[in-house]
Amino acid sequence: MKHIYDRVIHNGMVLTVNAGFDIITDGVVCIRDGVIARVESRKRAIDDYPARDIMDAAGGIIMPGLVNAHVHLPMSIFRGLADDLPLADWLNHHIFPAEREYIRPETVRIGTLLSCAEMMLSGTTTCCDGYFHEDIVASAVAETGLRAVLGQGVIDYPAPGVPDPARNIDVASAFVGQWRDRSPRITPSVFCHSPYTCSATTLTAAKAAARQHGVLFQIHVAETKDEAAACRSAHGMSPVRYLNSLGILDEQTLVVHGIWVDDDDLEILAKRKTAVAHCPESAMKLAAGVAPVHRMLDKGLTIGLGTDGCASNNNLDLFGEMDAAAKLHKVIRKDPTVMNARTVIRMATIEGARAVGLDRRIGSIEVGKQADIIIIDTHQPHLAPLYHPESHIVYAARGADVRDLFVAGEALVRDFSPVRLDIGAIMDQAREIGRRIQGGQTINIDEATKS
Amino acid sequence: MKHIYDRVIHNGMVLTVNAGFDIITDGVVCIRDGVIARVESRKRAIDDYPARDIMDAAGGIIMPGLVNAHVHLPMSIFRGLADDLPLADWLNHHIFPAEREYIRPETVRIGTLLSCAEMMLSGTTTCCDGYFHEDIVASAVAETGLRAVLGQGVIDYPAPGVPDPARNIDVASAFVGQWRDRSPRITPSVFCHSPYTCSATTLTAAKAAARQHGVLFQIHVAETKDEAAACRSAHGMSPVRYLNSLGILDEQTLVVHGIWVDDDDLEILAKRKTAVAHCPESAMKLAAGVAPVHRMLDKGLTIGLGTDGCASNNNLDLFGEMDAAAKLHKVIRKDPTVMNARTVIRMATIEGARAVGLDRRIGSIEVGKQADIIIIDTHQPHLAPLYHPESHIVYAARGADVRDLFVAGEALVRDFSPVRLDIGAIMDQAREIGRRIQGGQTINIDEATKS
Repeated sequence: MKHIYDRVIHNGMVLTVNAGFDIITDGVVCIRDGVIARVESRKRAIDDYPARDIMDAAGGIIMPGLVNAHVHLPMSIFRGLADDLPLADWLNHHIFPAEREYIRPETVRIGTLLSCAEMMLSGTTTCCDGYFHEDIVASAVAETGLRAVLGQGVIDYPAPGVPDPARNIDVASAFVGQWRDRSPRITPSVFCHSPYTCSATTLTAAKAAARQHGVLFQIHVAETKDEAAACRSAHGMSPVRYLNSLGILDEQTLVVHGIWVDDDDLEILAKRKTAVAHCPESAMKLAAGVAPVHRMLDKGLTIGLGTDGCASNNNLDLFGEMDAAAKLHKVIRKDPTVMNARTVIRMATIEGARAVGLDRRIGSIEVGKQADIIIIDTHQPHLAPLYHPESHIVYAARGADVRDLFVAGEALVRDFSPVRLDIGAIMDQAREIGRRIQGGQTINIDEATKS
Repeated sequence: MKHIYDRVIHNGMVLTVNAGFDIITDGVVCIRDGVIARVESRKRAIDDYPARDIMDAAGGIIMPGLVNAHVHLPMSIFRGLADDLPLADWLNHHIFPAEREYIRPETVRIGTLLSCAEMMLSGTTTCCDGYFHEDIVASAVAETGLRAVLGQGVIDYPAPGVPDPARNIDVASAFVGQWRDRSPRITPSVFCHSPYTCSATTLTAAKAAARQHGVLFQIHVAETKDEAAACRSAHGMSPVRYLNSLGILDEQTLVVHGIWVDDDDLEILAKRKTAVAHCPESAMKLAAGVAPVHRMLDKGLTIGLGTDGCASNNNLDLFGEMDAAAKLHKVIRKDPTVMNARTVIRMATIEGARAVGLDRRIGSIEVGKQADIIIIDTHQPHLAPLYHPESHIVYAARGADVRDLFVAGEALVRDFSPVRLDIGAIMDQAREIGRRIQGGQTINIDEATKS
C-alpha cells in the first residue's frame, strides 16, 4: 500500500488549540514531511489512513507540544543549590559566584542536555532560552532534536565566554549569524540581560543588531520592585517607559517577567505589540511579585508562559507552571473565573509560540503547521474520570504524564523514554558536576564530563 | 540465617524529619512487625542486617510517607466536572446537585478507591477524610491498606446516607463506635461540616460525641470572606470566636482552612492547641483567599497540609501542594525566606500527623514509629544534580517520582505499581461513572460499577 503519511496518530482526544479551541473526540492527526497534513474526527477505519507508522494514543489527549517562553537551560546544574534566601543574598552569594566559577563550555553543554531531557520528558517541544556560551547551548539543543529560540547574552559585565563586555554585541551578533540558517529547529535571538545591567548604549546597540538580523530580542524587565524603583531613580521613568524611550519595544521584543508595570506601561506594550513571558513559579519562589496578567489580557497583550531557569523554580515542568499560573491569579484577583483552563493552555502553546515569533509554524494542531505534538497518557488514577480534557491538562496532569513527544514529526520520546538521548549518561555527568560544585572543588570539567 | 528484621531499606538518603531534621547519607532503615526498629548510617555490609527482604533504594530519597490533612475521598468522581466558576455557582449549580444525584454507596466506594490509588502512587500514606457514607469510605480505605482518619459528616441538611438531619449525630457516633477497634490503620473521627451549615446545637452535640469517643473533630472554618462576614452578622463573632464560645476548640479539633482569621483568632487557636489543615491549592483555585500561615507559625500552631477534595484542586498530589504552599506564601509575604523547604516538609509529614492526632505513631522515620515510608526515585533529569534532598522534595519532585510506598511496613506500591489494588478496574469503573454523570443519565450504579 502506498503510504500517503509518514505517521498517523489516532484514538485520542485532540486538543487542537486552534482559534476556536476545537476539541476532536476520536481524532486523527496525519503527518507528512514533519508537517501536519490532516486533522479530523476519524471518518473511516484507521488502516484507511495509509501511513508508515500508526500510533495509537490509547484514549489519551493529543495536543500541541508546550512552548516554554523563558528559560536558562544551562542553569539546571544549579538546581536546588540555594533556596529560601533573600534575593540579593541568593544572587550575590550563591548564583553569581557559582556562575563565575562553574559556567564553562563543558558545564553549559551538560546543563543544556539535562534541561532538554527534562523538557522533552515533560511535554515541552520548544523553548526560548537566554544565556552565555549560547553557541554551545545551540549545539547541545540541536543534538536533542528539540525546537528552540536561543539568545546569546549581552551584559555590561565580564560574562562566561565574553570576558570583555566591549565585545558583547559582537559576540551576540556573530552567534545569530552563525545559527541563522544552520538548523531548521534552531532560531537564533539576542538576549539582553536587563535595563539595569546594560547601559542605554548597549541596549540600543543590541536591539539594533537584533533588528538588523530580524530576530527576537529578549530582555528581563521589571522583575523586582527594587529594580523598578532604581530605574525611576536613574532615568525618571519606569523600566517599560525607559525601554520605550530608547526605541527598543516592538513586536520582536519579548519582555520577560513584567511584574512591576502600571497601566501606562501596559498601554505602551500593547501599542508596540510587545509580548510578555510570564514566569509565575520563579516569581513566587523569589518573592519578586505577581505580574498583572489579567490586565495584560484585558489589553490584548500576547503572553507566553515560562519556567525561568532551574535555579529559581526548580524544575522545567510547564504542567506545574500552568497549574500555578491558573491558581495564583485567581486567588490574587479574588476571582475564580480568571485564567481559565483554555486561557492558560493557550499561553503554554499558541500564545507562547506567538511571543517567541513562531506562531505561524507551531503552537496548535492545524494543517500546515509543524508536527510538534505530545500525547498525554490518561490511564492514571489522577486523570480519571475525564469530563473536560482542558481541565485535566491544567489542574490535574503533570509532566510525567507525557507518553510521547514529537518535534517536526520526529518522535523524541516514545512510551515515556527518550529516543535520541542517553539520559543516564547525561544525569551521571550532571551529578558529577553537582558533586564538585558542592564540594567547592575547582572543577576539572573536562574530566567530570568525560563520557 | 536468622532474620532479625522483616525488611531493610538501604542505599538511599534518609530524610528522617525527626526533631533535628537529620538527613542520613547512605542510610539504613530496618523494619520489624510493621515498626521502625533501627535507623542509622550504614555501618557494615548490608547482608549483615539480616532481613527477609532487602530493598535497595538505588540512591533515592527515603522519607516518611506524606500525610494529607484534609480530603474528601469520594469526590474524585467529580474531578474536573466544573472549574473556573464563581464559588456560589460552582457549589450550587454543579457540586451540590452532583452530590445529590450521584453520591451513593457504590459511587462513594469507587471514588474512595480511586483517590486511594492516586494517593499511594503519589506518596501519601495517611489521609484525614470527611464525607458521608463514611462506613463505605472506611471499608474501601481498609481494602487499600492506607492509613486514615475518617470522619462521618454532620450537617443540618439532608445528606447522602442521612436523609433526616435529626439523625446526623447518631449516625456519626455509630460510625465511630463501629470503627474504633476494627482496623489498626483506620481511626474514626467526626466531621462537622461547618459553623454555617450546622446549628450551635448540632455543633456542640457533635463535639460532645467526639469528646465522648476521644476522637478528632474536623470542621471547615473561615474558608471564605463571605462566610466570616455572615458569622459576624449572625453571631457577632468571627467563626473561630464563635466556635470557641461554644467550647468546641481543643487539641482534638482540626480547623480546616482557617483563611479569614485575625490575630485574636490565632491566639485562641494557640491557647486551645487547636491545629489547622492548610489547603493552599484548593483555596487558590476557588479564590477563597490565603491563610495567614506565617502568623500561625509565629504563634506556634500545628499546621498540616491538605489537598482538599478532587473537585477543587484537582488532584491529591501532596508534592504539588508542598510546592504551591512554599511558593504562595513567599510571594504573598514578599519574603523568599518564609515557608522554607524543611518547614513545608514538616507540614506534609510530622505536623500533619500531629494535626490529625497520630504524631506518636507516624510522621517521621524514628525507632518505634510505624513504618510508613516512601522512596523517591532520583534517577530522573528533573532531580539531578542533588545538592539538598529537602529542596528537591518541595521544589522539583512530583508525586510520580514515588517508586515505593509502605504502610506499617507493608509494601503497597513497588516499582511504581500498586501491589494490592487493581487500578485498571478502579479506573474503568470511575470512568463509567463519569460518562453517566456527563451524560446526565440517572446512574444505575450497581450496573456501572459491577466488576
